[in-house]
Amino acid sequence: MSQRKLTVAVVGATGAVGQQLLSILDQRKFPVGKLVPFASARSIGKRITCGSVSAECREMSRGCFDGVDIAFFDASDAISKEWVPEAARSGAWVVDNSATFRMDPEVPLLVPEVNGHELKDRIARKLGGEKHRILSGPNCSTVQLVVALQPLHKGWGLERVVVSTYQSVSGAGAAAIDEMLNQTRAVLDGGWQEPSIFPHRIAFNCIPHIGGFREDGYTSEEHKMLAESRRILGLPGLRFTATTVRIPTVSCHSESVNVELKRDFELLELRQALSGAPGVCLIDDPNAKAYPMPITGPGDLVTGGTGQDPVYVGRLRRDSSLERGVNFWVVSDNLRKGAALNAVQIGEMLLGEVL
Amino acid sequence: MSQRKLTVAVVGATGAVGQQLLSILDQRKFPVGKLVPFASARSIGKRITCGSVSAECREMSRGCFDGVDIAFFDASDAISKEWVPEAARSGAWVVDNSATFRMDPEVPLLVPEVNGHELKDRIARKLGGEKHRILSGPNCSTVQLVVALQPLHKGWGLERVVVSTYQSVSGAGAAAIDEMLNQTRAVLDGGWQEPSIFPHRIAFNCIPHIGGFREDGYTSEEHKMLAESRRILGLPGLRFTATTVRIPTVSCHSESVNVELKRDFELLELRQALSGAPGVCLIDDPNAKAYPMPITGPGDLVTGGTGQDPVYVGRLRRDSSLERGVNFWVVSDNLRKGAALNAVQIGEMLLGEVL
Repeated sequence: MSQRKLTVAVVGATGAVGQQLLSILDQRKFPVGKLVPFASARSIGKRITCGSVSAECREMSRGCFDGVDIAFFDASDAISKEWVPEAARSGAWVVDNSATFRMDPEVPLLVPEVNGHELKDRIARKLGGEKHRILSGPNCSTVQLVVALQPLHKGWGLERVVVSTYQSVSGAGAAAIDEMLNQTRAVLDGGWQEPSIFPHRIAFNCIPHIGGFREDGYTSEEHKMLAESRRILGLPGLRFTATTVRIPTVSCHSESVNVELKRDFELLELRQALSGAPGVCLIDDPNAKAYPMPITGPGDLVTGGTGQDPVYVGRLRRDSSLERGVNFWVVSDNLRKGAALNAVQIGEMLLGEVL
Repeated sequence: MSQRKLTVAVVGATGAVGQQLLSILDQRKFPVGKLVPFASARSIGKRITCGSVSAECREMSRGCFDGVDIAFFDASDAISKEWVPEAARSGAWVVDNSATFRMDPEVPLLVPEVNGHELKDRIARKLGGEKHRILSGPNCSTVQLVVALQPLHKGWGLERVVVSTYQSVSGAGAAAIDEMLNQTRAVLDGGWQEPSIFPHRIAFNCIPHIGGFREDGYTSEEHKMLAESRRILGLPGLRFTATTVRIPTVSCHSESVNVELKRDFELLELRQALSGAPGVCLIDDPNAKAYPMPITGPGDLVTGGTGQDPVYVGRLRRDSSLERGVNFWVVSDNLRKGAALNAVQIGEMLLGEVL
C-alpha cells in the first residue's frame, strides 16, 4: 500500500526552524500533498514552498486546521498553548517543538532514536486521552545530548552527567543571527550596537545565561536539559547538572560532557557503541585534528549550521578522576536535529501507522 | 628604608603578554630604574617604554643579563629553556611564564594569592640550589581557576573538580587576535581566510583543541590545568578533569566549574568566602543579569580583555546531583591575571626581601 499524500500545516513557517523544516520535509520526501503555512501577521501572503508544493502564509483562526493531517509547530510557547489543542481537536496529529507540553504526563517527549518506542506504544494503546495526537519535541540542547548518552546508558548505565554548553545564536531565532552579525560588523568598525535579543553584547563575548533565571540560580535552559533528559531517557532520578552558555557562533550547539557510568568499561567498547548508535557520527581522530565543531559539514554562514543530520561525537577519553568516568564533546545542528529534523522524524514514525 | 630602583629585563617585550606586563609594572609603580627589553630579531631597535623609562629592544646574547635584578620571561618554552638558567646564573631573579619549569620540583609554581607562602619559605630557607632564583608562573587557564578554588579548598576541602573552558584567542598571542579578526571580516564578506595559528577557522566557530594531543586523548592544555592546579593547591592527588575549548572572543578566558567539596556547606558561606578572597571579585546577581563575561570591565576590542585585575566569579549555585556539589563560572583577563599581572605580583613579593 503506497503512502497517501498528506495535508501538512507548518506553524512558524517563516522562522529559522520552520524554514529548515520545510527543506527537510522535501529532502526526506515526506508525502506533502497540500501545504498550509501559518505565520505572524507581517508574513501573511508570503509564498512558502516545500518541494513542488507551495502556498501563501495565513494567520491562524478557528477551524484553520480542518482537513490537516499533521501540523508542525515551530513557534512560541504562547502560540502552542493556544493552538496545539485546537489542531488536535480538528483531528490533526501535532508535532510541537515548543516547551508547552514537554513536561505534560499525557504528552510524550520524543527523540525517535532514544524513545521512539513510546510513540508506538501510545498509538497501539491509544494513550493520552484528548491529547492522544499531541507529540512533543525537546529543547535543542537536550536532543543532541540524549542521542549521545543513549548508547552509553544502554550499555553501561548512567550514574551522573555534568554538561557545559557552547550554544549558537540561531537557537534564539533568525533575528538573533542578524543581531550577532550586525554587532560583529559594528565592533570591528570600532562602533557599538545595543543588544535587543540577547541580554548583553554577544559579538566576541560569551554569555552564561540562556532563558530566564529561577530561584535556585539555574536558568530555564539548564532546567530544561535536566528535566527533559531525565524524561526522554526514562531515568527520573538521573543525577544531572548543566551550565548553558551562549557563544558567538551562528549555528550548531556544542557540549562538553562528563559522564559517570554504572558499570566498568573499556574505552574501545564505548567507541564502538557510539559509532554504531542511531543518529550518531563519531569524529574522533585527534592526531588528524579531527573532532566535531560548529563548522563541521558544508553549512554556510547565513543559513548556519552543518546542514547535516548527525549528532557528532568526539574527544572521547577516560576521566581518571572517577572509577568509571568518561569525557566527550558533542556537536549538532541545533536547527536540524535539535528541532526541525527531530520533528520530521517524529512525523515519519506516524506514516503507515496512523497517517 | 626606601626601595632601590631596579634593572628590569623583559624577554618578549613586544608580545601580547610582554606589552601588558610593561603597562602593569608602570601602573603598580614597580621600581623600574633601568629597562632591558629583549625581543626577536625583527623587533631589534624598537623602543619600549615603561612609565618614564624606555630602552631599545635587543637580542639576547651571552652576558646580556649582567647587572639585571629581575627578568620577566614572556616568550616561548624554547627561549626560556635556553635563557632562564643564564639569567639566574648572572644573579637575576627570574619570573618565567613559560611551561619550562612549571613542573620542576626545584622551582616553585606561584600564584601569590594561593601559595605565595612557598616563595617566602624558599627565600628564608634558600631552597632550590642553582635554581633558587627561578620562579615560575602557571598557564593562564590555571591561574584564574586556582584563585577561585582556593577559598573553597581552604574552607571545605576539594573532593573533585570538573572544568570546561571557553578560552579567548589572545592566549595564543597577538597574531592570533589578528587571525581571528581578519577571518571574521572575511567570513562576513562571504570570503575565506586559511587559518595559520589555529588548527581550524576560529571565526564563528569553537575548537575543542588547545595545545597538542597526548596518548590519553587529552590536550597539553588540559594536562597543564590538572598538573598545575594540583601543584599550586598542594593537592597532588586532587581528582580533576578538564576540557579546554577555544572560542571566538578576543581576550579573557571563561570557565564552567563543577566542584565536589569534602565538607557540608551553606551556599551563603561559599558566597561569603569567595567575596572576601584575595584576587576574587564576585559578580552574581542573576536577576540584574549580572555575571562575569569576557566583556566585563572597560577593556577594548583590540588590546582585548577586561583590563581589570580580578578573577571574576558568578553563577554560584548548588549542584544537587551531589551531596556537596557546587557550580560556578569564572572569568579573568588571561593576559593580566592569567600571565602579566601574576608575574608582576610574584616580582612584588621579592621587593624588600631580596631586591
